[in-house]
Amino acid sequence: MKVSHIGIAVRTLEEAGVNYAALFGDENLHRETVEEQGVDVLSFPVGDALVELTAPNRDDSPIAKFLAKRGEGIHHIAFEVEDIRGELERLREAGVRLINEEPREGAHDMLIAFVHPASFNGVLVELCQRKDS
Amino acid sequence: MKVSHIGIAVRTLEEAGVNYAALFGDENLHRETVEEQGVDVLSFPVGDALVELTAPNRDDSPIAKFLAKRGEGIHHIAFEVEDIRGELERLREAGVRLINEEPREGAHDMLIAFVHPASFNGVLVELCQRKDS
Repeated sequence: MKVSHIGIAVRTLEEAGVNYAALFGDENLHRETVEEQGVDVLSFPVGDALVELTAPNRDDSPIAKFLAKRGEGIHHIAFEVEDIRGELERLREAGVRLINEEPREGAHDMLIAFVHPASFNGVLVELCQRKDS
Repeated sequence: MKVSHIGIAVRTLEEAGVNYAALFGDENLHRETVEEQGVDVLSFPVGDALVELTAPNRDDSPIAKFLAKRGEGIHHIAFEVEDIRGELERLREAGVRLINEEPREGAHDMLIAFVHPASFNGVLVELCQRKDS
């Protein structure tokens, strides 16, 4: 298991992107729209992980709701696993509360599933698996 | 630059440690007290990064204040750099608001400095450098 990415909820990629470029530089950025989640994502590579700025592109996006309730800040932490279905099953058996019982499509051509923050002391955890693995 | 650790504010290491062990296992854990910050820290290795559960050990700990205001959850993200003083100088010149103008002692025998969340869209960023580097 490794840290895949850190998801940060922001209002606009343009404003936040300038701030984070001051820290990480502006090379090898990746921009993507994830329709299912209603978000635009701007990713900065940091070591072998990504810092992902995530802005809503429609009002009913989960990120729009997060921003309305909590403001900008860290939204979730994603950990890459080799077998997401096996990992979900293992966590379910350990009594962990899952948000997604089955993996769904995420950015970067990954399968993803969210675990409920109630099981991890307020932290929204995402598991992800490369589709080519 | 790489992700060094993800700092999570929790009320007690005992309760939170059980939750996170379900995800990461319980091998190679590291437990440490950082007197200057008034915290006890339990670290789980995840790839080449750490997930650090951080609980206050006195009432005036910054983590105690965070818990009272926000509850449990992600407190900060730390990025390891090779030259923390040079990085702080670079950020200062870019107009980034620093919390620590000079590095101080952190866990894991690191020099650390915090950057103000106002400069990074609500995210408390820590920079750290190994003392032996």
